[in-house]
Amino acid sequence: MFYAVIPAGGSGTRLWPLSRAGHPKFLHALTGTPLSLLQATYGRLEGLATPECTFVVTGVAHAAAVARQLPGLPEGNILVEPTPRDSCAAIGLAAAVIARRDPHAVMGAFAADQLVRDVPAFTDTLQRAIQGAEDGLLMTIGITPTHPETGYGYLHVGERVGAGDVCKVAEFAEKPAIDVAQRYVDSGEYLWNAGMFVWRVDVFLDELARQQPALHDGLRRIAEAWDTRDREEVLAEIWPGLTKISVDFGVMEGAGRAGLVGTVPGNFGWNDVGDFHTLGELLETDTAGNVVVELDPSSPAKPTVLMQDAERVVVVPRSGRLVAAVGVSDLIIVDTPDALLICPRARAQDVKKLVDSLKERGSSELL
Amino acid sequence: MFYAVIPAGGSGTRLWPLSRAGHPKFLHALTGTPLSLLQATYGRLEGLATPECTFVVTGVAHAAAVARQLPGLPEGNILVEPTPRDSCAAIGLAAAVIARRDPHAVMGAFAADQLVRDVPAFTDTLQRAIQGAEDGLLMTIGITPTHPETGYGYLHVGERVGAGDVCKVAEFAEKPAIDVAQRYVDSGEYLWNAGMFVWRVDVFLDELARQQPALHDGLRRIAEAWDTRDREEVLAEIWPGLTKISVDFGVMEGAGRAGLVGTVPGNFGWNDVGDFHTLGELLETDTAGNVVVELDPSSPAKPTVLMQDAERVVVVPRSGRLVAAVGVSDLIIVDTPDALLICPRARAQDVKKLVDSLKERGSSELL
Repeated sequence: MFYAVIPAGGSGTRLWPLSRAGHPKFLHALTGTPLSLLQATYGRLEGLATPECTFVVTGVAHAAAVARQLPGLPEGNILVEPTPRDSCAAIGLAAAVIARRDPHAVMGAFAADQLVRDVPAFTDTLQRAIQGAEDGLLMTIGITPTHPETGYGYLHVGERVGAGDVCKVAEFAEKPAIDVAQRYVDSGEYLWNAGMFVWRVDVFLDELARQQPALHDGLRRIAEAWDTRDREEVLAEIWPGLTKISVDFGVMEGAGRAGLVGTVPGNFGWNDVGDFHTLGELLETDTAGNVVVELDPSSPAKPTVLMQDAERVVVVPRSGRLVAAVGVSDLIIVDTPDALLICPRARAQDVKKLVDSLKERGSSELL
Repeated sequence: MFYAVIPAGGSGTRLWPLSRAGHPKFLHALTGTPLSLLQATYGRLEGLATPECTFVVTGVAHAAAVARQLPGLPEGNILVEPTPRDSCAAIGLAAAVIARRDPHAVMGAFAADQLVRDVPAFTDTLQRAIQGAEDGLLMTIGITPTHPETGYGYLHVGERVGAGDVCKVAEFAEKPAIDVAQRYVDSGEYLWNAGMFVWRVDVFLDELARQQPALHDGLRRIAEAWDTRDREEVLAEIWPGLTKISVDFGVMEGAGRAGLVGTVPGNFGWNDVGDFHTLGELLETDTAGNVVVELDPSSPAKPTVLMQDAERVVVVPRSGRLVAAVGVSDLIIVDTPDALLICPRARAQDVKKLVDSLKERGSSELL
């Protein structure tokens, strides 16, 4: 019995103005299919976890959208956080709820907004990670790097333990500079840290208790009340005071130093769809390298894009208007009903700063 | 008594998607004031010609808009062409109508979609041109070139005749290559051909009769019927068969070879506002060289443009949406309710080709 947990949070700031606080990245179909990233994430886990053993943790603003997008998911398996308290609380809540039902269950946590190209290879990697988890390790799935990416953290792979390619993680490495990233890739000793975790809930909760005792205690009390009439009252009392920390900083790095973290290398076309440049690299291009990110590629009513002498342009047409691009290259054009973004692909990361500016000037209706 | 004729035609293709067939360039306020180009053209002629002596020649699609934009212009002075027959017919119609009223009148023709920065200097130049016209020359106002522009035709200036800087035009030169344009500018012997004409209507009509006898005869018959109940019938019969030719090719070049064309140099901040790059050069920029072309600079409801690390960008916000530009330079962004244009400033001329493509694919609703 495997439990799948899908934290569906984060607003995908670098995908603004497509991704908004009210309709974030994970609710969008971005990858050349009519499925949203959330639906695709759910779908690729269906062969491993039953709907009854699948949980989505999300915020109050998106609970209804999640329920509609995943009609097969039992209502009670949508865990709604009253306020955002970062990933350690979100994933920890799911772990504590699952542990009440099955104290030694193996669970995996898979962000709702990532892309996996090769689902059979993903399933195979996950099964090897489950083996490591059953043996008592906190497993983090590592991605074999394809290039010296500076936008991800890395895992320094240590000694092999047990069967199935499971290795200890010697160290978690922060997002590196480009020369350091190149050294990591050349060494063959590093994997990308994809933030996909697999563990026995008892092993995880023990580490949480050791490293974050207050958070552990709060989550334990919430989980005890979860299936009772006191749930809302206890949540309201305890949730707002929970430690706000990521699961990487709150548990995994400390567990790594204690020799409790393992990894298996994955090679399944993983991508975090972090920005529009990356999105452009994922999708099929025309002969000039241009990409049009259709709303729903199966829809007959296609948006209208006209390009002349354009190269490697990423267009996201979402307003129904004609987008005409002449003589431009390596550009991002995102056209939505109330906001338009123009940005070179090389500056795709800076969209985050733009959103910060909008926040500063109080344009919350556009966020 | 000076007569001013304003041909208000042409759709300003290179200013698409702002300028449309249904709402062309001359109806837009583009130059940092609330006045449309047509209104500004009318306004700068008011000191020289009374409203009764001012005529606008326009197409059926724009007669109503012209009437509304120029409430002081007598209704009968809006000459409406049943179909477009190019500038020789448009200007010739006005000349023939004026000649019926005043056979030796001096008239000037001034395109409705050009910009003049220095109105007193324009008035002074025009008065010198009127002197040359009274002396029997077909005058074309030349613009002292400020740079080797390849988008304009040139006038090769010949011998001086009479007073007031009036010179013969030795030759009309086609739009030159850049090296030729540079030679023209360096020589000091060339002026830009701005397409502003001043002449006695009898002198013009005699040349029209000599070079375009059929067109002259058709216009004479229409003018005879103009103030009668037969106007519409005669127009319907004759107008569609009129020779379709520009006044430059149809009359001025031949008149030039016959030694009948004169010019005076003008230096009054003339610009044809031909494309968005040019428009960007006309308006005030921020410290990074960016220009936002406001709908109406006097309006309190300003459109929203957010630029970060943007340089020399021309933004025309006309949809009410936020336009966010990050890290781009030398770009044109024109945002209208049904179409968006993205184009480098260096490719501003190619917008015409884009419009041709739209015509080819039958997207007439966007033209």
